[in-house]
Amino acid sequence: MKSYARVLVMGYGVIGKRVADAVVLQDDMKLVGVGDVSSDWRIKLAQKKGINVYAVGNDAKEKMEKSGIKVEDTVESLLKSGAVDIVVDATPKDIGARNKETLYKKYGVNAIFQGGEKAEIVDVSFIAQRNYREALGKKFIRVVSCNTTAIGRVIGGLHEKIGIKKARVSIIRRAVDVWESHSTGIMNTVVPESSIPSHHGPDVKTVVKNLNIVTMAFKGSHNLFHMHSGFIEFNRPISKDEVLNVLNAEPRVSLIAYKDGLMGLNSVFELSRDLNRPRGDLYEVPVWSDLMKVEDNELYLIWATGNESIVVPESIDAIRASLEIEEEPEKSIQKTDKTLNITKSLY
Amino acid sequence: MKSYARVLVMGYGVIGKRVADAVVLQDDMKLVGVGDVSSDWRIKLAQKKGINVYAVGNDAKEKMEKSGIKVEDTVESLLKSGAVDIVVDATPKDIGARNKETLYKKYGVNAIFQGGEKAEIVDVSFIAQRNYREALGKKFIRVVSCNTTAIGRVIGGLHEKIGIKKARVSIIRRAVDVWESHSTGIMNTVVPESSIPSHHGPDVKTVVKNLNIVTMAFKGSHNLFHMHSGFIEFNRPISKDEVLNVLNAEPRVSLIAYKDGLMGLNSVFELSRDLNRPRGDLYEVPVWSDLMKVEDNELYLIWATGNESIVVPESIDAIRASLEIEEEPEKSIQKTDKTLNITKSLY
Repeated sequence: MKSYARVLVMGYGVIGKRVADAVVLQDDMKLVGVGDVSSDWRIKLAQKKGINVYAVGNDAKEKMEKSGIKVEDTVESLLKSGAVDIVVDATPKDIGARNKETLYKKYGVNAIFQGGEKAEIVDVSFIAQRNYREALGKKFIRVVSCNTTAIGRVIGGLHEKIGIKKARVSIIRRAVDVWESHSTGIMNTVVPESSIPSHHGPDVKTVVKNLNIVTMAFKGSHNLFHMHSGFIEFNRPISKDEVLNVLNAEPRVSLIAYKDGLMGLNSVFELSRDLNRPRGDLYEVPVWSDLMKVEDNELYLIWATGNESIVVPESIDAIRASLEIEEEPEKSIQKTDKTLNITKSLY
Repeated sequence: MKSYARVLVMGYGVIGKRVADAVVLQDDMKLVGVGDVSSDWRIKLAQKKGINVYAVGNDAKEKMEKSGIKVEDTVESLLKSGAVDIVVDATPKDIGARNKETLYKKYGVNAIFQGGEKAEIVDVSFIAQRNYREALGKKFIRVVSCNTTAIGRVIGGLHEKIGIKKARVSIIRRAVDVWESHSTGIMNTVVPESSIPSHHGPDVKTVVKNLNIVTMAFKGSHNLFHMHSGFIEFNRPISKDEVLNVLNAEPRVSLIAYKDGLMGLNSVFELSRDLNRPRGDLYEVPVWSDLMKVEDNELYLIWATGNESIVVPESIDAIRASLEIEEEPEKSIQKTDKTLNITKSLY
């Protein structure tokens, strides 16, 4: 059990840079630095912001220094020195698993992985409001992906409090992240994920273990946020008020209204930019309260998912759980939410 | 009962122009002409193709003539003359309802309306393979919309032959039609339909009356085709083979495979263009046979919908049913399909 976490963020990409900024805001954490292999504008901007930069390997160190970046040391030397308690690994898929073997286990540091990694490589998959206690003291924790996190937040509470018989969710994903300009983008089409169910359903079950859920997923021709439609069948008849009460009590879930002009992912994105947060990020899952319909045992529900940012508060909570800095889930969640200005009522 | 239909197509837009071309191909129909109010390139091209043009009202006639179009007469005079047995009304939403009162009832001609019109204005809503017989001799028939037609074709057969307990369908619609360049397009977003269930579910029930179905719909940032994901729960356990058998027996439903490179709406669109049909149209509903999953009582299924063209064969069949040119559904469907080169196996 620690009272303080010295954190290294590995991979300064979409998630990593956001986690790094969030770590800086915590009074029980210190950002030791970021580890990367890149020499592009992102790392240069990190350095300009005063963040220490570490290189993964000597080759990368040399290249980064050649491009004018001041590299403190290699990540390996840093970890060896004992100056890091925990790593948040936000590197691309599968690299985290490799880093676990070659770096984190070797030097005895805890690590938080992202949803791109397999559940098998960690001790526990994690959504703060669902299974924080299960993650207490665990060396390797995986924060599940943005879509899985959103489903876990929205559906998990309904399952705990009312009891879901079966959830069916169809997901329209963003095609690429905003910064990407390479070949994975799509235009003027909709592309189904190649397996049914999509990986999200099984992934939610790594956290909400007894949930009966099936998901189908599609890529849409857009790069801002995901859209989810849920057909959620309960074990008994429910009322809309009951659903609203559960969602209102759920952290990091915010009700929004179509009648207030929030008519699509674009207007939700604009709202999130108006909240004056870094990068216009949206950490909450916005659920349309007036696009909700209840019929007997079943709820039809629509929510959006800020793919770049909703796992950021989860990563912060995962650090506290792993190092047992805080044993009470509510306390960690509240602390994180306060520092990131996360709110139940967005407007 | 007639052996021959003299057809006027009202509204030479996305649907109207396709129906007009399809009417010309039938040996039991004659295209008298098209009625419109527009003077743009579309009407000029119709005329160039040898189609007689009629104007809705004297004002439109004058304007059209000024722009160089040879107008045969007004639609009113044409209908009065008794030279038309049936009108296919493909005018924008609600104009069909007005035309019914001011023109078709007045001059005693039958009419086929499109899915934009309300079910209440007609004697029967129509999907050929579902309720052709119900439409026999009916004066006013509504061919349901493209999405509704697709659902009716794919799910209707499964319901008739196996028995659906509840169908849940999430639809990603195209934002606009290809030709449109005005304000209804969307970019880089996904926009939910403002009501749950979307109108498609109730609309299917106007044809498949005892089907328990709920639909949610979204506009995507694309203009080619719709994408449907169906969670289809049956009254009993089913097998994939059973589902494939039903879909194979269903007219105007074609199985396609993701593993054959048909990985999204775009590649389905490209396939449809390679079929060498007018405008690259796709009249069949393509269903992914390898994105299909069966679990106990439930089927997860994905299909695309060619929004511009799938109601064209329906409109042709509706003409035959209304005028009782053909009493056997299969015979009309086969005849239409032969003329349009509709096939079970697209490749």
